[in-house]
Amino acid sequence: MTEVYRPLTPQTLSDRLRDTAAVADRVGGDPDDWTVEEVGDGNLNLVFIVRGAVGTVIVKQALPYVRLVGDSWPLSPRRAFFEYQALTRQAERDPGRVPEVLHFDETQALLVMDYLTPHTILRGRLIRGERTEALGAALGRFCARTAFLGSDLALPTATRKADAAMFLDNVELCAITEGLVFTDPYFAAEMNNHTPGLDPVVATLRADVAMKTEVQHLLVAFANHAETLCHGDLHTGSVMCTETETRCIDPEFALYGPFGFDLGMLVANFLMAYFSQPAHRGDDLVEYQAWILSTIEELMRTFCAEFERLWDSRRSGILYPRALFEDQGQTSDGARDALIARIVADAFGFCGIEMHRRCLSLAHNADFEQIEDPAVRAPLEARNLMMGRELILRRREIGSPQALTALARQFDREAVR
Amino acid sequence: MTEVYRPLTPQTLSDRLRDTAAVADRVGGDPDDWTVEEVGDGNLNLVFIVRGAVGTVIVKQALPYVRLVGDSWPLSPRRAFFEYQALTRQAERDPGRVPEVLHFDETQALLVMDYLTPHTILRGRLIRGERTEALGAALGRFCARTAFLGSDLALPTATRKADAAMFLDNVELCAITEGLVFTDPYFAAEMNNHTPGLDPVVATLRADVAMKTEVQHLLVAFANHAETLCHGDLHTGSVMCTETETRCIDPEFALYGPFGFDLGMLVANFLMAYFSQPAHRGDDLVEYQAWILSTIEELMRTFCAEFERLWDSRRSGILYPRALFEDQGQTSDGARDALIARIVADAFGFCGIEMHRRCLSLAHNADFEQIEDPAVRAPLEARNLMMGRELILRRREIGSPQALTALARQFDREAVR
Repeated sequence: MTEVYRPLTPQTLSDRLRDTAAVADRVGGDPDDWTVEEVGDGNLNLVFIVRGAVGTVIVKQALPYVRLVGDSWPLSPRRAFFEYQALTRQAERDPGRVPEVLHFDETQALLVMDYLTPHTILRGRLIRGERTEALGAALGRFCARTAFLGSDLALPTATRKADAAMFLDNVELCAITEGLVFTDPYFAAEMNNHTPGLDPVVATLRADVAMKTEVQHLLVAFANHAETLCHGDLHTGSVMCTETETRCIDPEFALYGPFGFDLGMLVANFLMAYFSQPAHRGDDLVEYQAWILSTIEELMRTFCAEFERLWDSRRSGILYPRALFEDQGQTSDGARDALIARIVADAFGFCGIEMHRRCLSLAHNADFEQIEDPAVRAPLEARNLMMGRELILRRREIGSPQALTALARQFDREAVR
Repeated sequence: MTEVYRPLTPQTLSDRLRDTAAVADRVGGDPDDWTVEEVGDGNLNLVFIVRGAVGTVIVKQALPYVRLVGDSWPLSPRRAFFEYQALTRQAERDPGRVPEVLHFDETQALLVMDYLTPHTILRGRLIRGERTEALGAALGRFCARTAFLGSDLALPTATRKADAAMFLDNVELCAITEGLVFTDPYFAAEMNNHTPGLDPVVATLRADVAMKTEVQHLLVAFANHAETLCHGDLHTGSVMCTETETRCIDPEFALYGPFGFDLGMLVANFLMAYFSQPAHRGDDLVEYQAWILSTIEELMRTFCAEFERLWDSRRSGILYPRALFEDQGQTSDGARDALIARIVADAFGFCGIEMHRRCLSLAHNADFEQIEDPAVRAPLEARNLMMGRELILRRREIGSPQALTALARQFDREAVR
């Protein structure tokens, strides 16, 4: 094993990993016969598919800079450590939902994982109009289980505190979210870009002091409220699916944050898929848009139902203890419902912010980016941006999944002034 | 210097500290001539006054158990480390308001500090009917400065995160607060005790599921919301005064917690002083009670005014950045006022909980405890308990310092059913 961090290349990979049993055994055969393909299409990392006589693995190595921007933006490869730690915990809390880690090398910032096949990235599937059975249910359970079981609702608080202390060191990745997501969209930040034609909408959002105030209240929650271990970057590019299976990947942005953060990010990315559909679909537009909204409803409904189930069956932490409710012959249903309502309201707020930053800040998403004609793209992004504003401002009033999807239908129908 | 932790005694102290320059210089003369007096009257520690030819110092050593309960309740002496770290930060953020640390020995869990003279503990002063000039202003400034300057409003967030990670290890002291303050008062916990005659009030509180739910929402904030470095135990026993000076001591419970925690604890202890006065005063009752309430108003008014001043002059962190408001020719006054309103609402909630636990849980306070006749004590405690409930339930509606003190007057007048 090498002592110094060095990025892998397709040429060096088999020599450097041939002695790592976890890799050699799973890939099999003579390492000289392995085929290595670099497929990293994300913003930050090297990703290789390694195929051999027996099987296939994914090798992911963190680069010491932001790949999207280049080596002018250095970024500690230590994020691979946090990804490894998060994957381990997620696998415990929602077994089978994340890829199996076969090997982790801290010095090389390198993870070897299960190759998911024939899974493809959910964002691309949504652009292509593909469906996955029980997608919303799988993701709702994942969000609820990781949220509940990673918090003081379930863990011994000393365990959560020690873990939260460790993850507080994932400071550079948090800083990306604090900047690119919560701040940059709302002023003329250097790295911003947006579609021509959106200037009036951008001006409306930046003029909205009440909305920006709410965004900053939500940043307090993101940056300070260490309620549970969040995935931290759970968009549709961090989900891989087949027609029947769903997996969550890439938790390198993991942090202790608010209960509703992952849920909100995920819903935002489904809503952006929804608003972008008129540019990607033909005759099946209405039907596929309806499927996306039904998936959002299923996601939210399942989140709440699973959170309720865990409240009743796994509530063993310091928060809302049974001694104060059930043991006195009283119900804690009201406390549970109030907490869930607060989590959902937070999630709607984070959702609106994610909808903004993906059209206004540095890292846009393919749902809109693949629409080549700006004259087609801009009005669809405008609907998305204006619904984001509504979600931030009215997050405590919306309440139900149905009210959320009704709002989406309304913004999809209405031209934005 | 000794390598192994050993508790000091009045007999061994001068031998063990004679070679510590910071002590020997300040106390002066021949260490054999030092007079050493053990004066610890708190719940946790050894405290010595060391007098010599030149001066006097305080030596405080953490014991490895809870002094109030005995060695059946072990408690890591590492809390002295957190007290030292907190004192250092508080001294930077509000210079002159905490005792100067002359020496810290981590192994011995030992702090040598400035001897404050002729300062006496504020709680005793309030029981005796003594006054301190500008007491509320001094404490309001301390709470606002430590809250603002210890947070992402002012600090580089990487600094706050690293510091928050360190303080997350103060887990045993946080567990005391999570248990004794937020949980035990609301069920028949083993170490609880309350004045005979309070059973009906206790039953009312424990039957109030809506209130207990709010208490648990506030526990989420205490345990998870690492907004700023809190003193963590800022009651009137942690304040020392003369007629003109005010100092804050004993931050061993320090934690990253909600902005409003210290403010709420402090107001609670003034309110308990207020409600206990009929048993301590004669002809000067009305006047002295009015002075306590005016001190509460001054404390809260100063907190808000100082927080506003820092918002305008020291807002250099990631939260509510000027780029989103002032730099766009917009005011951030609305954001500031909304944040302060939320902090005050939280504070009222913590205030109500502190009022409960001091009459129902393990550690009671002298304001009520020194009332010998339970028949006198119980109705005064009942007023305090019922106002605590009101504060928890209506914390978002009360708003102004005047509304708070008006509520106190109302509960002081009314017999509790």
